[in-house]
Amino acid sequence: MYSLSVQTDRRDQFMAITHQVQRLVSEAGVKDGHVIIYVPHTTAGVTINENADPDVVTDMIAQLDQMVPWDQPFYRHAEGNTASHVKASMMGSSATVFIEGGQLVLGTWQGIFFCEFDGPRTRKVMVKVVSDE
Amino acid sequence: MYSLSVQTDRRDQFMAITHQVQRLVSEAGVKDGHVIIYVPHTTAGVTINENADPDVVTDMIAQLDQMVPWDQPFYRHAEGNTASHVKASMMGSSATVFIEGGQLVLGTWQGIFFCEFDGPRTRKVMVKVVSDE
Amino acid sequence: MYSLSVQTDRRDQFMAITHQVQRLVSEAGVKDGHVIIYVPHTTAGVTINENADPDVVTDMIAQLDQMVPWDQPFYRHAEGNTASHVKASMMGSSATVFIEGGQLVLGTWQGIFFCEFDGPRTRKVMVKVVSDE
Repeated sequence: MYSLSVQTDRRDQFMAITHQVQRLVSEAGVKDGHVIIYVPHTTAGVTINENADPDVVTDMIAQLDQMVPWDQPFYRHAEGNTASHVKASMMGSSATVFIEGGQLVLGTWQGIFFCEFDGPRTRKVMVKVVSDE
Repeated sequence: MYSLSVQTDRRDQFMAITHQVQRLVSEAGVKDGHVIIYVPHTTAGVTINENADPDVVTDMIAQLDQMVPWDQPFYRHAEGNTASHVKASMMGSSATVFIEGGQLVLGTWQGIFFCEFDGPRTRKVMVKVVSDE
Repeated sequence: MYSLSVQTDRRDQFMAITHQVQRLVSEAGVKDGHVIIYVPHTTAGVTINENADPDVVTDMIAQLDQMVPWDQPFYRHAEGNTASHVKASMMGSSATVFIEGGQLVLGTWQGIFFCEFDGPRTRKVMVKVVSDE
């Protein structure tokens, strides 16, 4: 099990962690298998989406914010960050990517994103590399 | 493959199943690996989120209900529970958690929740423990 | 690692791929384990939901479209398909199903659906069969 550190600097932020995950896969020396990326936080998640035009994740953040408003008359959670928890579960706490020939098998436009929904914070991402053999 | 039984008593309910999953992991005797939790229902899901303040999941249920209204003029599904199906797919049918030294590796505030969206019902959760070796 | 081809014919479409996945599991000859289904696209996803009444997925598509409007004044992504990206991440890029006795272990009503959010297109689905042994 490997661990990555991510420093976010805004409340909502999608940070590409593809290269860091690839580095761990290379370090593990696994040729064929899959990698599981896990976020041990309850106001952050992980997703796979476009990493070409940066407007995509900016738009995704804005749309999630509109669907899950920061303030709702019915929120009871005293910490005031219910929206972060909802968005975290919508994106999910883990992602899986295949490995072939030591490389992550991602689609042309895909990147792996750590999804911050209650930053800025120092966050942790856990990674496990599973070999086919 | 293990199986858990969950009895829900409301239409929408997030029930912590962390302890039951940990018990199965201990029973399996796996020291290092990961566990996959799978929900074989189409109006229920599974998610990982905060298990400290119970208001968090109460708020999450309320917010999901606002985003996915029970009644919509365009729903055609005769059973009338389209909203449950949408919410089930939003949370997802499976979750993965790492295991280290025989223990689930969860963040400080994390718990594993069975998400009921069309209860009360008796539900099943399937669990597979995968060893690193 | 196996690969499936999916041809969609509408902008939003949930296509059942359960039989194709079962065929690959049979071909792999794995008796007990799990299968991981992965979508290498950023405007499509995969989910597990009801495959009995076709109105369920029709309703799900309509509800997702209402939650994530195609046009929003704040979208900046020039390609104009931000909504497809949001819906793809909401459904997720991968799904996991257990295998027992060579068969997918699905609930009575469950099917595996490829989720098209920016069709019509020719799409690819990647599948990895992991044996318990």
